[in-house]
Amino acid sequence: MPIRVLVTGGTFDKNYNERTGQLYFKDTHVGEMLELGRSRIDVRIRTVMMVDSLEMTEADRTLIVQNCVKAPEERIVITHGTDTMTDTAAAVAAAVTGKTVVLTGAMIPYAFGSSDGLFNLGSALSFVQVLPAGVYIAMNGKCFPWDRVRKNRERSEFEEIPGPPE
Amino acid sequence: MPIRVLVTGGTFDKNYNERTGQLYFKDTHVGEMLELGRSRIDVRIRTVMMVDSLEMTEADRTLIVQNCVKAPEERIVITHGTDTMTDTAAAVAAAVTGKTVVLTGAMIPYAFGSSDGLFNLGSALSFVQVLPAGVYIAMNGKCFPWDRVRKNRERSEFEEIPGPPE
Amino acid sequence: MPIRVLVTGGTFDKNYNERTGQLYFKDTHVGEMLELGRSRIDVRIRTVMMVDSLEMTEADRTLIVQNCVKAPEERIVITHGTDTMTDTAAAVAAAVTGKTVVLTGAMIPYAFGSSDGLFNLGSALSFVQVLPAGVYIAMNGKCFPWDRVRKNRERSEFEEIPGPPE
Amino acid sequence: MPIRVLVTGGTFDKNYNERTGQLYFKDTHVGEMLELGRSRIDVRIRTVMMVDSLEMTEADRTLIVQNCVKAPEERIVITHGTDTMTDTAAAVAAAVTGKTVVLTGAMIPYAFGSSDGLFNLGSALSFVQVLPAGVYIAMNGKCFPWDRVRKNRERSEFEEIPGPPE
Repeated sequence: MPIRVLVTGGTFDKNYNERTGQLYFKDTHVGEMLELGRSRIDVRIRTVMMVDSLEMTEADRTLIVQNCVKAPEERIVITHGTDTMTDTAAAVAAAVTGKTVVLTGAMIPYAFGSSDGLFNLGSALSFVQVLPAGVYIAMNGKCFPWDRVRKNRERSEFEEIPGPPE
Repeated sequence: MPIRVLVTGGTFDKNYNERTGQLYFKDTHVGEMLELGRSRIDVRIRTVMMVDSLEMTEADRTLIVQNCVKAPEERIVITHGTDTMTDTAAAVAAAVTGKTVVLTGAMIPYAFGSSDGLFNLGSALSFVQVLPAGVYIAMNGKCFPWDRVRKNRERSEFEEIPGPPE
Repeated sequence: MPIRVLVTGGTFDKNYNERTGQLYFKDTHVGEMLELGRSRIDVRIRTVMMVDSLEMTEADRTLIVQNCVKAPEERIVITHGTDTMTDTAAAVAAAVTGKTVVLTGAMIPYAFGSSDGLFNLGSALSFVQVLPAGVYIAMNGKCFPWDRVRKNRERSEFEEIPGPPE
Repeated sequence: MPIRVLVTGGTFDKNYNERTGQLYFKDTHVGEMLELGRSRIDVRIRTVMMVDSLEMTEADRTLIVQNCVKAPEERIVITHGTDTMTDTAAAVAAAVTGKTVVLTGAMIPYAFGSSDGLFNLGSALSFVQVLPAGVYIAMNGKCFPWDRVRKNRERSEFEEIPGPPE
């Protein structure tokens, strides 16, 4: 059961540019992280873009959706900036059916020593293997259906949106 | 849905003793790892023992099984040395019903910079939330039913045992 | 022989702000680094400011110089951003006599796993203990008199300025 | 001014063997550490042996001394286990004249995330550049003449031996 990993950037993959003193994107760390985690999952990684999710355009989101649609794999993990992760999740949910798609990211860049990235990647890759078709966000050790979650910016964590009364 | 984490030691939790130059057990790193991973899962951690799994006795295994049976939680993660992880999994499977139990560990101590522990913990805590009742081993990004897995010592990884012909 | 450490900020001490995704200054890491290095040197740390050295004003430099002059210690290490380290070194050299002052910094923040900061701090604290009175810059494992060094921005390293023909 | 680095093993260079769960020696980390520290010092590294200093024989010490004597460089750093570092320092002092030799090591292996090794290496390489001919031990941020220092095993640090009354 191969898993497609679509890389889109986000805090997860930011590096420190020593010449400018700014954070920037170079290559993704996903391969290195899977090696560190000694993953033996059959994973195909594709870098779709490397952007800050606050700067992600509708065209970017369309490209991500297309990658989900066209991927032969039925299980997909998307690494993504946390700020607009739910927007992309909604776009994917509107267009993709019959596949399990899990979005994840990090609050601290993996290149920093104390990142949540490795924990989140282990989590997302596990949820994607067992959850039924649908679009989810895996953060903070939990997995939320895409339309039941929001980022709480003050607490820097993802939380459930209470459902409507039945 | 609270999750019980039973700590038993293993490579996962080994520390370096600077006086003797040997590896030894002090306290578990699980709490610190969950903080690093920014976990917001409702987790109750209990250190049952801190031993090398090669030195684990039948009495030790009985104690682990009892902890699984008595825990009010229906979802349990056990951190464990990799060498006899499948033995403990078998003992748990023989005695525990109606609960989802996932064993995990690490090939490299978490106290080392380059451990697979954080990835495995994220993975185990995710599988345990969604899998049906049963006993599993989560290593290398995969999750195996307890009776379909063995440690390949040469390759330092867990692999599936092929099932009988149907 | 107590050593004064004056903290002024710079890349050395930058942290990642998870809410804004920007680098910023919080507290200095010098104390933590000395603990990691198991330093038993008698060190008195004072945070004079926490600024990017590109944004350091003349008033800031005056304050650093005053701290050097007033310090009862005869041996002083200044942690500083690399971009204007030589400017501050010149200001100190113009005003301070009879003391050994060593400036150091880092190309990568210590909060990142792969920083040169710990190496540089060990280096600066060693040079300051044995060099005669004067102002120096300790970077890249070397120690340069303040008026014989420049930052090579292209190579991200400090290099000697050839002296005049004798 | 080239510096010779003689590698002899010790805690500094220990690795974790994931098959046996024991610490062992593979290759030295000195080159990697110098890269991390962005050292631009002219350094020639030679691995003389890779042993635990408690297991170092007289023949081993003789070999280290010979390497010091034969080295064309006048400035030498020796990485060494801490337990018998002073013994080797004494052997070197008895045979080597006209050279500055600094021994250093670590209490925690560099392969662990929280090692004092990088700090000590930066320190030793700095002291060796400026101290007069003689044999020294650089640990805990300090530099001791070889016959004025002992390891305090209880406190896991090096301390001065008080000199005789003059």
